[in-house]
Amino acid sequence: MPSKPTAAILTIGTELVTGQRLDTNSTEIALALHAAGFTVTEMLSLGDDVAACARQLERLCAACELVIVTGGLGPTHDDITREAASHALKRPLLRDQSIAEGLLTVIARHRDPKAAEHILLQADILEDATVIPATTGTAPGQAAATPRGTLLLLPGPPHEMRPMLAAFLGEHHTGVPPVRLRCTGTTESDVQLAAQRALAGHRGVELTVLAAPAEVEVVLFDEGAGEEGLLAAGLAVEAALGDVCYSNDGASLAEVVVRRACAAGVRLACAESCTGGLIASALTDVAGASDVFTGGVVAYSNDLKIAALDVPPGLLAQFGAVSGETAAAMAEGIAALTGATYAVATTGIAGPGGGSYEKPVGLVWFGLVTPKGTSTSCRSFPGDRAGVRIRATRTALDLVRRALPEAQ
Amino acid sequence: MPSKPTAAILTIGTELVTGQRLDTNSTEIALALHAAGFTVTEMLSLGDDVAACARQLERLCAACELVIVTGGLGPTHDDITREAASHALKRPLLRDQSIAEGLLTVIARHRDPKAAEHILLQADILEDATVIPATTGTAPGQAAATPRGTLLLLPGPPHEMRPMLAAFLGEHHTGVPPVRLRCTGTTESDVQLAAQRALAGHRGVELTVLAAPAEVEVVLFDEGAGEEGLLAAGLAVEAALGDVCYSNDGASLAEVVVRRACAAGVRLACAESCTGGLIASALTDVAGASDVFTGGVVAYSNDLKIAALDVPPGLLAQFGAVSGETAAAMAEGIAALTGATYAVATTGIAGPGGGSYEKPVGLVWFGLVTPKGTSTSCRSFPGDRAGVRIRATRTALDLVRRALPEAQ
Repeated sequence: MPSKPTAAILTIGTELVTGQRLDTNSTEIALALHAAGFTVTEMLSLGDDVAACARQLERLCAACELVIVTGGLGPTHDDITREAASHALKRPLLRDQSIAEGLLTVIARHRDPKAAEHILLQADILEDATVIPATTGTAPGQAAATPRGTLLLLPGPPHEMRPMLAAFLGEHHTGVPPVRLRCTGTTESDVQLAAQRALAGHRGVELTVLAAPAEVEVVLFDEGAGEEGLLAAGLAVEAALGDVCYSNDGASLAEVVVRRACAAGVRLACAESCTGGLIASALTDVAGASDVFTGGVVAYSNDLKIAALDVPPGLLAQFGAVSGETAAAMAEGIAALTGATYAVATTGIAGPGGGSYEKPVGLVWFGLVTPKGTSTSCRSFPGDRAGVRIRATRTALDLVRRALPEAQ
Repeated sequence: MPSKPTAAILTIGTELVTGQRLDTNSTEIALALHAAGFTVTEMLSLGDDVAACARQLERLCAACELVIVTGGLGPTHDDITREAASHALKRPLLRDQSIAEGLLTVIARHRDPKAAEHILLQADILEDATVIPATTGTAPGQAAATPRGTLLLLPGPPHEMRPMLAAFLGEHHTGVPPVRLRCTGTTESDVQLAAQRALAGHRGVELTVLAAPAEVEVVLFDEGAGEEGLLAAGLAVEAALGDVCYSNDGASLAEVVVRRACAAGVRLACAESCTGGLIASALTDVAGASDVFTGGVVAYSNDLKIAALDVPPGLLAQFGAVSGETAAAMAEGIAALTGATYAVATTGIAGPGGGSYEKPVGLVWFGLVTPKGTSTSCRSFPGDRAGVRIRATRTALDLVRRALPEAQ
């Protein structure tokens, strides 16, 4: 296969390198470029420094077929991208008279005559560059030829950048979308090993494994396999992963649970102690959750476990709040209160305080009610308070997913 | 003042340059470095390519006093940071036996003997580098001397990276920590204007205003004012902002609510419809929340509003679930169920469906119970489902904050 064209992304803005603003443009552009068949070799962020930007632009244009720059095209003194590109390509900026005329209405809105000079800078175009008209802002984009390919200058605001990028890539689309398999209840290394084995007979597929707390994602990219080859590889890996793989279309665990409950026509509920509302908020984050999720109780205190969930006080006294008996009683209590057919409950020690030798921080009991009856299970999670809570939430959702019939 | 030391940040991972994962580490580290007195000259992301990473690392180490790398320190085949750093610094990797022994317990959990080889790679340390022990993961960090200063290798998962960065910067702190004022219930431009006016008489202070849904943060950096000058500027801005400013020490809104309730010796509860557990999870995210937060009910369905919160069915029929009457009844219901003195309730339309001409998407009613009685209020939020939910959550927490006496 011919090797893929290479691309680099440069985002310009002092607010980025001082950590004042999170750069989301680079990730969005990288995803679009990767899907369009480019290999992005680097993503770089620099401050509003003409010399530094010119130097790096020269390096990137020499190394890559496509260089996309965002930011620094506006009308203020720190918008230095045009000047940096002019230095890097050794090509002058020429004022485009029709763009300048269009900017006169913008200038008319400002009372300050000094602003006019700055606003008109947006009409300065690199010699021989193609103008990409601004549809949602005032600064146009520019596409200039480089010795290796193209330099594309786009505005920084995502809603201005997006349509220009889409217009440019619409003309340059070459790729196959990646396959994404999301897993839980397993480890990064187990997933890696299973995927590598399953891919043994498949050529031209690039494997990436991403880990988050109680979540592992496999991403397969086309590196010559083509669309059919990539899909076949995806099916092979999915089969090898088995039921730890909960989605092959990007859906979150909560989405899969809602989808399965919807298909089965059943209703869900949850009773949470240590997860403190995270299960309910994950489910209600899914649009349309109200069709299947009746609600839940965050029973943080023993009193509320008794008052809202009918957990017997004697049971709490005998086994403690963090126990299989209490988890089962909580799940049964919320099922009875809501009339849900499937209910899950959590009770555990998220930390940092509250742990003991017998019940250490990270210990979580789960109760699960299904039409087959009530069951309990217990896990010991690593990590800090936030880590324990998110792991317990994903585990609870996964218990419900596995209990529900698969959606067809 | 002497010129600031320069720093560069390199994040490594094919998932970054393919747009699969948003890089938040660079921004977080840039902010910490900026606050610690460094000038960050560039932030770079590269894929898992040993040669490319080694080449760029060599360039960055030659250009900057401090180079921080995150990612690629784990146990899989694409964790290539150690090798790249070894090439760049022309220094061998040596296996640290005590780290290797610590990893044996991790290996013992895997059935596959092949995984052991990969896991042990995490014990490979650059010659003469200082090991930064892993407290929340398995991969240790490393700090190696470079001709110009230091190369710091940190793991990619933020919860593993964070404590190591803090430990390193704690020892290398050169600057005055910034003043951070967090606000809610106001707009970015109002905050900007108030802060600029308050800073009129203060020299050597850099002002940054950051906006997120229902949250505006003012950050003041020392640019010559010195510690006392910066604190004075902070007090002036805080006074100008008034009670929209809820914290001056980095505390989250939920933390401030828990702190105030703790100081007042009162108990809190919440009843959530459209926020679906987000208020409860924000409060229970605060360590020690169990001292003041009794719990809550996520009453997503009308049935549960009736069954758990005693909302009269006739009231629901007459005014609808999204109404001041229902919000008040929900707040009173959860207060009665839990015995809490302060209770807040939300009911609204998060979207994307469910809106009407009279009750559009974004409309949220709040009910608040305090010792003074029950009150209701109504807001119309912009944004998508997630945006409406987070804005409603922050607004509800702010209602409770304002109702509680200030902690002394």
